[in-house]
Amino acid sequence: MPDKTKLTTLSELGEFKLIEHLTKDFTLQKKSSLKGIGDDAAILDYGDQKLVLTTDLLMEGIHFNLVYTPLKHLGYQAVIVNLSDVYAMNASPAQITVSVAVSNKFSVESLEELYSGIKLACDQYGIDLVGGDTTSSVTGLVISITAVGSAQHDKLVYRDGARKNDLICVTGNLGAAYAGLQILERERKIFESDYKIQPELTNYAYILERQLKPEARKDIIQALSDEEVVPSSMIDLSDGLSSDLLHICKQSGVGCRIFMEKIPVAEETINAAEEFNIEPFICALNGGEDYELLFTVSPEELKKVAQIGGVSMIGHITDSDNGNKLITKEGNEISLQAQGWNSMSED
Amino acid sequence: MPDKTKLTTLSELGEFKLIEHLTKDFTLQKKSSLKGIGDDAAILDYGDQKLVLTTDLLMEGIHFNLVYTPLKHLGYQAVIVNLSDVYAMNASPAQITVSVAVSNKFSVESLEELYSGIKLACDQYGIDLVGGDTTSSVTGLVISITAVGSAQHDKLVYRDGARKNDLICVTGNLGAAYAGLQILERERKIFESDYKIQPELTNYAYILERQLKPEARKDIIQALSDEEVVPSSMIDLSDGLSSDLLHICKQSGVGCRIFMEKIPVAEETINAAEEFNIEPFICALNGGEDYELLFTVSPEELKKVAQIGGVSMIGHITDSDNGNKLITKEGNEISLQAQGWNSMSED
Repeated sequence: MPDKTKLTTLSELGEFKLIEHLTKDFTLQKKSSLKGIGDDAAILDYGDQKLVLTTDLLMEGIHFNLVYTPLKHLGYQAVIVNLSDVYAMNASPAQITVSVAVSNKFSVESLEELYSGIKLACDQYGIDLVGGDTTSSVTGLVISITAVGSAQHDKLVYRDGARKNDLICVTGNLGAAYAGLQILERERKIFESDYKIQPELTNYAYILERQLKPEARKDIIQALSDEEVVPSSMIDLSDGLSSDLLHICKQSGVGCRIFMEKIPVAEETINAAEEFNIEPFICALNGGEDYELLFTVSPEELKKVAQIGGVSMIGHITDSDNGNKLITKEGNEISLQAQGWNSMSED
Repeated sequence: MPDKTKLTTLSELGEFKLIEHLTKDFTLQKKSSLKGIGDDAAILDYGDQKLVLTTDLLMEGIHFNLVYTPLKHLGYQAVIVNLSDVYAMNASPAQITVSVAVSNKFSVESLEELYSGIKLACDQYGIDLVGGDTTSSVTGLVISITAVGSAQHDKLVYRDGARKNDLICVTGNLGAAYAGLQILERERKIFESDYKIQPELTNYAYILERQLKPEARKDIIQALSDEEVVPSSMIDLSDGLSSDLLHICKQSGVGCRIFMEKIPVAEETINAAEEFNIEPFICALNGGEDYELLFTVSPEELKKVAQIGGVSMIGHITDSDNGNKLITKEGNEISLQAQGWNSMSED
C-alpha cells in the first residue's frame, strides 16, 4: 500500500480529471474499438452501422433523492440520461440493459414502480430492454444503465470537431431542471420542518417536469437528419452549459464567444430564479440535467438550422487564443468557468 | 402507492423470479434485438458478427468484502465475471465499460489499485476499456461493468439448446472458490478477535487464488473452436453447479442425470471442506464463483471433446419427466436443488 501520508483525496482531482488519470495507461488495441473514453459514448465497429455504447451509474443520495423523486420518475430519468448520450453522438439508441441494487427492505411493488418508469421511457423512445438484473444493496438504491445505439459512420458527431467561425447552437431552454430542483429542495425543507404544510408546487409545473421527467432530444436528431445537417461537434447538456461547452472547446482545440442575451431561458425559470435571488443566466450556465443538445455547425448551415424549431444560436467558435468568453448584456467579457455539477467535490 | 399491508418482500420472490417478474411486460421490438434477458448475455444484430452484451453490478458487502479482497484483485475479478458471461455464449469479448462509485474518503491511490487490476485483466484477455466513469457514493464501493463481444451467428450457444442424451461437461474443478472463501472468512474472524494472530494461509494457495483471482475460460472457447465443436447449450458457473445446471434444464425443457463421483473437485478443496466438516461435493454443487463452463454436447462429439484437456463429463441430459437427478456414490438418486448463491435471500 502507498504511504498514508501522501494519499491524494478525490476532490483534489475532481470527476473529469480523475477518470482521465485512472485510464491514462489503457490504450485501444482492438480494430473494433473506434473511440474510447472521452466523449458522450464509445464507438465500436461491428459492421456497416457503427455501434454507440454508453453507461451511467446512478447513486441514491448523490444523483437522486427518493424524498422528492417518485420511483416511476426515477426509472424514466435513468433511461433518458443514457439515451441522451447516444443522441449526442447523432446516433439512434435501440437497446438498454438495466441493473438495480436495492436494500431487502424494498418491496416488490416499489420495484414495479421503478420498472414502470423504465418501461414508459422504452415505449416512448422505441427502445428494447435486453439485459441486466436486480441485486441486493446493504444501503441505498443503485441503478446502472447501459445503452446501445447505432449510426452510419459519416453521421457520427464527436466533441472534438468544432472549428473557428462555427455557430454554437442549443436546443430548448436552459436552467429549467436546476430551477425545478431548487423548488423541490425548498419544499422538502419546509415539509420536514412542519409536516402539516403541503408543498406549494402549482406555479412551477413546467420546471418541476423538467427536473422530474426530463426528455432526450430524439426530435432534434431526426430534424437534423431531415435537414441533412451533420453538426461539427455535439454534447448533451448534463453538467451545465459552461462545463459542457468547455468540453467541446478543449477537445476541439478552439475558443468560444457566447452572448448572455441569446441564451434561452424559460419564463418560469426566470421567475423561480428571482424568488431565490439567483441570476437566471446562472441557472442556465451552471445548472445541469437539462438534457438539451449543444452543437456547433459551420456557418453555411445557418439557413438549414434556422428551419429547425427550438434551436437557438448563442455564439460562435473562435481561435483558442481568444479564450472562452461570455459577453454580458452590458457588453462586458467574462471568462467561462466550469462550475457545473461535480459529484466528486467536497460538499 | 399500493396498499402497505399487501407489500411483497423481495426474498419472497428471490433474485431469478424477481427479474422475470419485473421484466415480463417488456417485449423486444427492434429487429436488432436477437435475444434479451434470460441468458448469460443479450445478443444484438448489427452486422455479420452478432454482438454479445452483458452487464454486472457489484456491491460492497454483498458481492465482495474489502476486508480480505485487495482492491487490485477486486478490479481483476470484476472484469473476469463479465468476460466469463461472454465466453459462455461461445463468443469473444472485446470491449468493456467500467463505472465506479466510491466514498469521498477513498484516495486516488486506492482507485489506482483497483484500476491496475482492471488493466491486468484487460491485458491478460486482450480487452479494451472504452467507457465508464467514477462517481461518488455516500456509502460503499460499487462497480458496474458492461462487456461487449461478438461471434458468428451459427457459433452462438444459448442455455436452451440441450437435448436428450447430450453429454453434460464441466471444465476445471468445482467448489474451489467457495472453499477459498470459507478459509478467508475463518481467518478474518480469528484476526478480528485477536489482531496479533497472523492468518494461516500457506496451505490454501490454490483455493485462495480461485476465490481472489478467478479466471475466465477463454482457453476452452478457443479449444472448442479448434476442435470444431459447438456445444448445444452452455452457461458459466457463477451460482454453483446445481443452480446453473437447473437453468439449462429448465430453459431447454429437459431433465438431467449427473454422477457425484464424476464431479471434479481439487484435492485442496477436499482438504479444506473436511476441515469445515462440509462434504466436498456440497462445495462443488452449491458453491458459486468458480467461473468454469458447464456445457452440453451431442454424443457424437464425445471424441472431439475428449481431446480437450480439463473437461469432465459428469452425466447426460434426459427427458424432463425424469427430473433433475444426482446419483450418489452409493447409487442413490437425489433431486438437484437450486441452493446456489442468491443475493436476495434474507440472510
